[in-house]
Amino acid sequence: MREEAAGLRAGVAVATSNFPPVEWDRLLAVRPSLQRNIVKPRGWLRYPYPFLYGQIDPALFPVADWRECSRKALSVLDVRDWTQDLIDGDDPLLIEQIRTRLLPRRGVMADESEIMVTLGAQQALSLLAELLVGRDTEVGIENPGYPDARNIFSIKTSRLRLLTVDEHGLMPGEAFANCAVVYLTPGHQCPTTAVMPLDRREALLAGAQRTGAVLIEDDYESEIPSGSDTARALKSFDNGERVVYVGSLSKILAPGLRLGYIVGSPALIREARALRRLMVRHPPTNNQRAAALFLSLGHYDALVRRLGKALKERSEIAAHALARHLPDFDVRGAGRGSSFWVTCPRQTDTRVLSEMAREQGVLIEPGEIFFGDARPPRNFLRLAFASIGTERIEPGIKTLAAAARSYENGAPQ
Amino acid sequence: MREEAAGLRAGVAVATSNFPPVEWDRLLAVRPSLQRNIVKPRGWLRYPYPFLYGQIDPALFPVADWRECSRKALSVLDVRDWTQDLIDGDDPLLIEQIRTRLLPRRGVMADESEIMVTLGAQQALSLLAELLVGRDTEVGIENPGYPDARNIFSIKTSRLRLLTVDEHGLMPGEAFANCAVVYLTPGHQCPTTAVMPLDRREALLAGAQRTGAVLIEDDYESEIPSGSDTARALKSFDNGERVVYVGSLSKILAPGLRLGYIVGSPALIREARALRRLMVRHPPTNNQRAAALFLSLGHYDALVRRLGKALKERSEIAAHALARHLPDFDVRGAGRGSSFWVTCPRQTDTRVLSEMAREQGVLIEPGEIFFGDARPPRNFLRLAFASIGTERIEPGIKTLAAAARSYENGAPQ
Repeated sequence: MREEAAGLRAGVAVATSNFPPVEWDRLLAVRPSLQRNIVKPRGWLRYPYPFLYGQIDPALFPVADWRECSRKALSVLDVRDWTQDLIDGDDPLLIEQIRTRLLPRRGVMADESEIMVTLGAQQALSLLAELLVGRDTEVGIENPGYPDARNIFSIKTSRLRLLTVDEHGLMPGEAFANCAVVYLTPGHQCPTTAVMPLDRREALLAGAQRTGAVLIEDDYESEIPSGSDTARALKSFDNGERVVYVGSLSKILAPGLRLGYIVGSPALIREARALRRLMVRHPPTNNQRAAALFLSLGHYDALVRRLGKALKERSEIAAHALARHLPDFDVRGAGRGSSFWVTCPRQTDTRVLSEMAREQGVLIEPGEIFFGDARPPRNFLRLAFASIGTERIEPGIKTLAAAARSYENGAPQ
Repeated sequence: MREEAAGLRAGVAVATSNFPPVEWDRLLAVRPSLQRNIVKPRGWLRYPYPFLYGQIDPALFPVADWRECSRKALSVLDVRDWTQDLIDGDDPLLIEQIRTRLLPRRGVMADESEIMVTLGAQQALSLLAELLVGRDTEVGIENPGYPDARNIFSIKTSRLRLLTVDEHGLMPGEAFANCAVVYLTPGHQCPTTAVMPLDRREALLAGAQRTGAVLIEDDYESEIPSGSDTARALKSFDNGERVVYVGSLSKILAPGLRLGYIVGSPALIREARALRRLMVRHPPTNNQRAAALFLSLGHYDALVRRLGKALKERSEIAAHALARHLPDFDVRGAGRGSSFWVTCPRQTDTRVLSEMAREQGVLIEPGEIFFGDARPPRNFLRLAFASIGTERIEPGIKTLAAAARSYENGAPQ
C-alpha cells in the first residue's frame, strides 16, 4: 500500500522535495496538546482494579433497553426525521424530555427556547467559553476544580482566577466579586464532593446579581442520587438569567454517547445555537432520538434507580474497606456520587503512590491535576467506583493499602 | 407547570427582582447569530419540490443496512468498546476503514497518526480555524464559496481574502500568495461545481510550497461519482504536509449522523485531538462503530453505487428539464455531484424568484449567500436534486419555469 502510494506520487510533476517542511510551531495559533490533563490508561478495562472516574462498568450499561430504543429510532417515520441535517436545531422530542422529565427534578423550569442539546457537558462549557470569554475576561474557577474547565477557559483568557473551595464548596469573596464569569459545581463539587449549603447558594447568587457576573453551574452528577437535602440546582433559585445550567447524560447513560445540555436565557441560547451550528451543526440526530425514546419509555428512570442502588452499595463497600485498610486516609464523599476525595498523610506524593499501585493492578487518580496552583499539593487522590465491579472493590483497596505500606517504607520522605 | 415554577421560586429567600437583567449584549464576546447563513425552511420535506442542497431524500437512506450495523454495534463485545469515554481517541475500526477503503480511492495514503474523525466536515473546519487562524492571520477563501467556511474563519480573523473562482475553480494569483491559510474545494467547487484541472492543482500546490501557506482541501462531495478524469484529491499530489484534507460521510450516509474526518500531518492531528478533546471529547462512539461496520461489510460501496446511479439519473432529468423549460438559464454541473449552479438572466433577482417559486411549492437556493462581496450579484441560484424524488424533478422545474415567467412579467426591472 505504501509502495503503491510512492508510485502514485512519483508520477506527479510538482517538485516538492526541495521545499522546507511546514513549520507547525510557527503556524499554530494555539497549542492545546501542551495543557495538563487527566490521563487515563487506554487499556484500563484490562486492569483488575480500575478506580477511575467518568468511565462506566460495561455491566451497568442497559444494553437491551438501549437496543430497543435504537431499533425504534430506525422506524421509517423516525428515519425521516433524524437522517436530515437540522442545521441549528435539535430533536424536539429530546428537548421535551429534558424539559419535562429531567429539569423539574432539579427544580428547574424552562421552556423550549431556553434549552439546547450538546455533545456532553464538555461541548456546553466550550461553547459558553467561546461566547462569554474574551481575551481579557476575568473568569473564576474552583480550586481544586475540574481540569477540563480550567483548560477550556484558559485557551480563551489569561485572566483565570482560582477561587478557594472549602468543605461547603466554592467560597464567595473578593476574588469572586471581580469575575465576569464563574464556573462552579455546587451540587457535588468536583473533585471534593462537597454539596453547597442553601445559605451559601443564596449568597453566591446575590453576589452575582450585584456584580453582574454570569454563573455557569455544572450539574455534572445531577442524576446520581446524592442522599443530601439540597437536591435542587442553583439554577432553580435564579429568578433572572444569572445562572447558566449545564447538565449531562454521560454519567448515567454512557459517556461514549456524548449527550448533554445547556439551559439559559433565550438570548444566550440563540447565540449558542448559531455557534454550535458553525462548530458541529448539531449532536447526531439518531442518538438524540434514541435518548428521547429511552427517557420517554421510562428506561432512564429505571436506570437511575438501578445505578443509584449499585453506586450506593459500592460506595458503602469502598468506604468500609478504606476505613479498615487505610485508616490514616481521610475520605470525603461517602453516600453520594460516584467517587471519593481522599486526603493522604501530608508527606505522601500520590503521583508516586498511583504508579506503585498501578504495578499491582490498581488504578487511582492523583489529585494534583485538579489544582491550578503553580505548586499544587501532592497528597490528594480521587477514587471512583462506577468503573469497577462491586466484588473487586474490597480486594482492590486491600491491594492499594499494601502499595501504600511499601510506599511508606521505601519512599524518599 | 409555569405556575408551579413560580410557586417554587416564590419560596426562595433571595430577592432578585430589584436587580437589573443580564446585559447579554455587553457580555457576549462573539455574536454568531448575526452572520448571514443559508436558510432552509424547517418543513422542507412537506414541500412538493424541494431542490435543496445537503439534505437527503429519506428514500435513499439504507435503513435495513444501517439497522444491521447499529444492531451489531450493540453486541456485548462492541458495547464494551463504545460505551467508554475515549477522551481524545477514535474508534480504531473506523480509522482503519477510512485509511484503507475511503482515502485510497482519492489517491491519498495516510497512516493512523494522520487521521482524526470529526462531527462532519463542519467540525473539521472549525477545529482547523481555531488551530491555524489567529486574530491577524490572512485566510483565503473561494468567492463564490461555502458560506459556512466564510463564517467559521471570520469569527477568528478580520483578514479574510476573497479569492476569485473561474470555470476551473480557485485562481492562483497575488491575493493567494499573501495568505497563510487557504480554504478550497478543488474536487467540486462549492457552489459552481467546477472541477479543478491538473495543471492548476500543480500550480496552486507549488505556490503554497513557495509561500509556506497551508491549503485546506474540503473534498465534500468526494464519494459522489463525478464522471470527471480528475478523480484524485489535491492531497494526493502533496509530497509534504502542505495540504490538510477534509472528508465527509454526510453526503453519502446521512447528514444527521455527523461523521467526517481530517487527514494531515501528525503534528497537526495531535493538536487537533487535544482541541477536540476540549470541545466535545470525540464524536459519539456508537455511531463511529456502526459506520465502521457499515464500511467494512461493503454496505457503503453498494450505497455509493446506488446513490451515484440515482443522482446521475436525477441530474440528467433535471438538466433536460431545465434546457426545455428554462432555456435562457445557464446551467453548470450536469453529470457530476448533487447540484447545479445556475446563472439566470442578468436582471433576475433570485431572492424574489425563490420566494415566488416557494409559493408554488418549489424550493431553490438564491446564490447571493455564496458571495462574500459587499454587493453580491443576485442572478445566481443553486439547484440540488439529492433531496427530491426522481419523478418530482420534471414537474418541479416546470413549476419553477412558470414562476420565472410570472417574475419576468411582474418584477420591477
